[in-house]
Amino acid sequence: MTITEPALVADSQEALGGRFALSALSAGREPAAPETIGRWLADFAQRAYTTVERVPLDRLEGWERAPDTSYLRHHSGKFFSIEGLEVEAPGAVVPRWCQPIINQPEVGILGILVKEFDGVPHLLMQAKVEPGNRNGLQLAPTVQATRSNYLRVHGGRPVPYLEYFRDLTGRQVIADVRQSEQGSWFLGKRNRNMVVEAEGEVEVLDGFRWLSLGQVHRLLAEDDVINMDARTVLSCLPYTGAQLGAALGCDGDDFRSALVRSCVTDRARQTLGDHLSWITDTRTMTEVRRRPVPLDGLTGWRLHDGEITHEDGSYFRVIGVRVTAGGREVARWSQPMIEPCGPGVIAFVVRQFAGVLHVLVRLGAEAGSVDTAELAPTVQCNPENYARLPRPELLDVVLGASEEQIRFDTMLSEEGGRFHHALNRYLVVEAEVEAPSPAFRWMTLRQLSGLLRHSHYLNVEARTLVACLHSLAGRQES
Amino acid sequence: MTITEPALVADSQEALGGRFALSALSAGREPAAPETIGRWLADFAQRAYTTVERVPLDRLEGWERAPDTSYLRHHSGKFFSIEGLEVEAPGAVVPRWCQPIINQPEVGILGILVKEFDGVPHLLMQAKVEPGNRNGLQLAPTVQATRSNYLRVHGGRPVPYLEYFRDLTGRQVIADVRQSEQGSWFLGKRNRNMVVEAEGEVEVLDGFRWLSLGQVHRLLAEDDVINMDARTVLSCLPYTGAQLGAALGCDGDDFRSALVRSCVTDRARQTLGDHLSWITDTRTMTEVRRRPVPLDGLTGWRLHDGEITHEDGSYFRVIGVRVTAGGREVARWSQPMIEPCGPGVIAFVVRQFAGVLHVLVRLGAEAGSVDTAELAPTVQCNPENYARLPRPELLDVVLGASEEQIRFDTMLSEEGGRFHHALNRYLVVEAEVEAPSPAFRWMTLRQLSGLLRHSHYLNVEARTLVACLHSLAGRQES
Repeated sequence: MTITEPALVADSQEALGGRFALSALSAGREPAAPETIGRWLADFAQRAYTTVERVPLDRLEGWERAPDTSYLRHHSGKFFSIEGLEVEAPGAVVPRWCQPIINQPEVGILGILVKEFDGVPHLLMQAKVEPGNRNGLQLAPTVQATRSNYLRVHGGRPVPYLEYFRDLTGRQVIADVRQSEQGSWFLGKRNRNMVVEAEGEVEVLDGFRWLSLGQVHRLLAEDDVINMDARTVLSCLPYTGAQLGAALGCDGDDFRSALVRSCVTDRARQTLGDHLSWITDTRTMTEVRRRPVPLDGLTGWRLHDGEITHEDGSYFRVIGVRVTAGGREVARWSQPMIEPCGPGVIAFVVRQFAGVLHVLVRLGAEAGSVDTAELAPTVQCNPENYARLPRPELLDVVLGASEEQIRFDTMLSEEGGRFHHALNRYLVVEAEVEAPSPAFRWMTLRQLSGLLRHSHYLNVEARTLVACLHSLAGRQES
Repeated sequence: MTITEPALVADSQEALGGRFALSALSAGREPAAPETIGRWLADFAQRAYTTVERVPLDRLEGWERAPDTSYLRHHSGKFFSIEGLEVEAPGAVVPRWCQPIINQPEVGILGILVKEFDGVPHLLMQAKVEPGNRNGLQLAPTVQATRSNYLRVHGGRPVPYLEYFRDLTGRQVIADVRQSEQGSWFLGKRNRNMVVEAEGEVEVLDGFRWLSLGQVHRLLAEDDVINMDARTVLSCLPYTGAQLGAALGCDGDDFRSALVRSCVTDRARQTLGDHLSWITDTRTMTEVRRRPVPLDGLTGWRLHDGEITHEDGSYFRVIGVRVTAGGREVARWSQPMIEPCGPGVIAFVVRQFAGVLHVLVRLGAEAGSVDTAELAPTVQCNPENYARLPRPELLDVVLGASEEQIRFDTMLSEEGGRFHHALNRYLVVEAEVEAPSPAFRWMTLRQLSGLLRHSHYLNVEARTLVACLHSLAGRQES
């Protein structure tokens, strides 16, 4: 056996962070001011659209009730099902409740393809229509496909660019990690978040476009343009390291410099080791018992007018829709969706300590969490659900913030394939507050980026806010 | 609200690694040559012992069969149960099998208390008797307690030193991470592995003793002295960083220098990012379906002479024992245990690349794995079970290694509270081989230490071998 001595490589996170800093500062290789991208989207929207019609759940074509559990499932046994869940969380504000929940055990792929143009990495973004989107079209990752989807269980067309994410041999993989999705609505759901670099020529298909990170960051500040799947993948970019600090600059005493320092410095209020111990402690001590229960007769919920609603009118509804799509995908289908009752407020409270921006995260369990508790935004709620419950901590600090305190404020929607008009107001608010309870901790963005290399530390709402914070680090002062 | 500006701290892993290097080089503050420790253990063994008597499973006092599933459980509903499991692993060597498995959902604490004497950290080790130990007494962590145990469900005495691990306020936590245990015998079992530093005076109770890491490392080379629970906690020590390299020295071209470099250098055959992507890919693509099935009538297994045995006589037996203990714990109890059929071979094959030692890990799923696949030793099997199956890869390289290739070779036993005489030959073998399949990868010890800060990357057998490798890094050439 002949063995050639291979060279060793150093870990590449630092260098990757520097490359994406360049991309964040770039207006893009193409003449693509926001207006141009807007025109491209508007043009594409003419040719790709969905019509969504409400249908009572009991008359959804292709869907049936399981005889024993009354779960709502597709007759093929694929896609997902709507099930009933009883949750017991001793010691929580609400120690026991029942709810419908989506069970979609398959792990799909959310992947962004990256390619360098003139030395600057660009992201291949997809204009994607989804039935739950208020505005139809949003910008999605290159690949956004459930497993059923990419294995073509429903007989649709092949998923474009899938090959870059299925066979990784010889490719530069920039991020590849399974992350959870909405724990309030999904039972243990997770998707594979990937960023992969393409070598050589890549054909740009209709509905796809190369954008620099700077362009994507600008679009993230616009309502309802960058979809949830794109946001979670963006949060997993290695936006850290000394090279990023050098490229973006962090010598000032302004907010942006404190933010960039937060991405690059090893110094923090507490060590990563302390934080990991805190997470281990909470996950060990939190008791959340979940028990599947029949969907019919779920305590507190009723089937009314073909929808499953809470008897208070709060939380969310399970609705049925018939979708007619013009464009690339299967032309017509029916499905249940979750429709929240009113928009939510999702916010990071941030604060500078010794010139380094820290983010106040909350560690908590949700009904469908994969592993008990994950780091969540400082505030994550639909205020209307709290009429008869104690007001969520720091909600009033967020809602009462002055204009100067508000660093980010955009309406963004959650996954339009399962959720109907699930809009949330995403905020980053700078405030001189203390952590209100041991469930909260201050962390730097570098610490959060370190955790994002691994599964199930940050929930999907916190990941969106990490992407939003990254977008502020590269923004030129105006 | 008055807010004082707190100082920021840098991550402490590097400094901790240096401190434990000092401890590894120390012969200990007390006059404690191995003989002294041996005498102390022998003396303690006079006063602490268990008598173990076999009892048929159907006559185990306090244990009963569940009416619907025939699972063997304690009448209190606590401790653990023996259940039946059907596993389907399409594409595996054995694509479908049934087996009994221990279900113990509680997360216990395995904790080592650390205290500095004359500037050198020492570990408080416990002489602990367990019914499954061939030799009765072994060295255990300061605290080794199931949740039932430390909440005193069975009415035993309080667990000594528990307070150091239950209230972490103001303490220096050196490691705190939930890790899995034997995936072949446990269903999703995990324990909390902790290393916590004590400030101030600590009373040393009978059966406990402060040892330096150097002393523990020497004892690890002796058969059956350091128990499994101690080994897994030792593996989680931050044995990495430049200070460790400086303290242990790594300028030579010998095996030990290559090993120390492996603990400290950032350079490796592949980046951590590549490894994480490989783990994500395998976990996403591996399909392991588990289904609870009744314990009676389990395909391939039978209840015979009061034991559950495989019809080939292979794998393991479920036996019943009545234990009489003299010493600190409850005096008499009965319980089922798992008794493997013959000793196993558990080995890391290691190899130097560009002067840096790399460990060949195998990524695979076990019946009870918490999250599909974990990193396992290069070889982990009971050779007798493979009479009718393809020979495990690299088993013959390990068993045929010359004396110069064998760097570590000790019989160690698994957890004596659940497993009866579960002995394995643990080996580290240096060999110029290539990874035999894509299920294997070369990693440095620094990469493994990085992963050990997080849950469920390394299985318990691989963690024992990491502790063994660390023990070789501090060893003086003789």
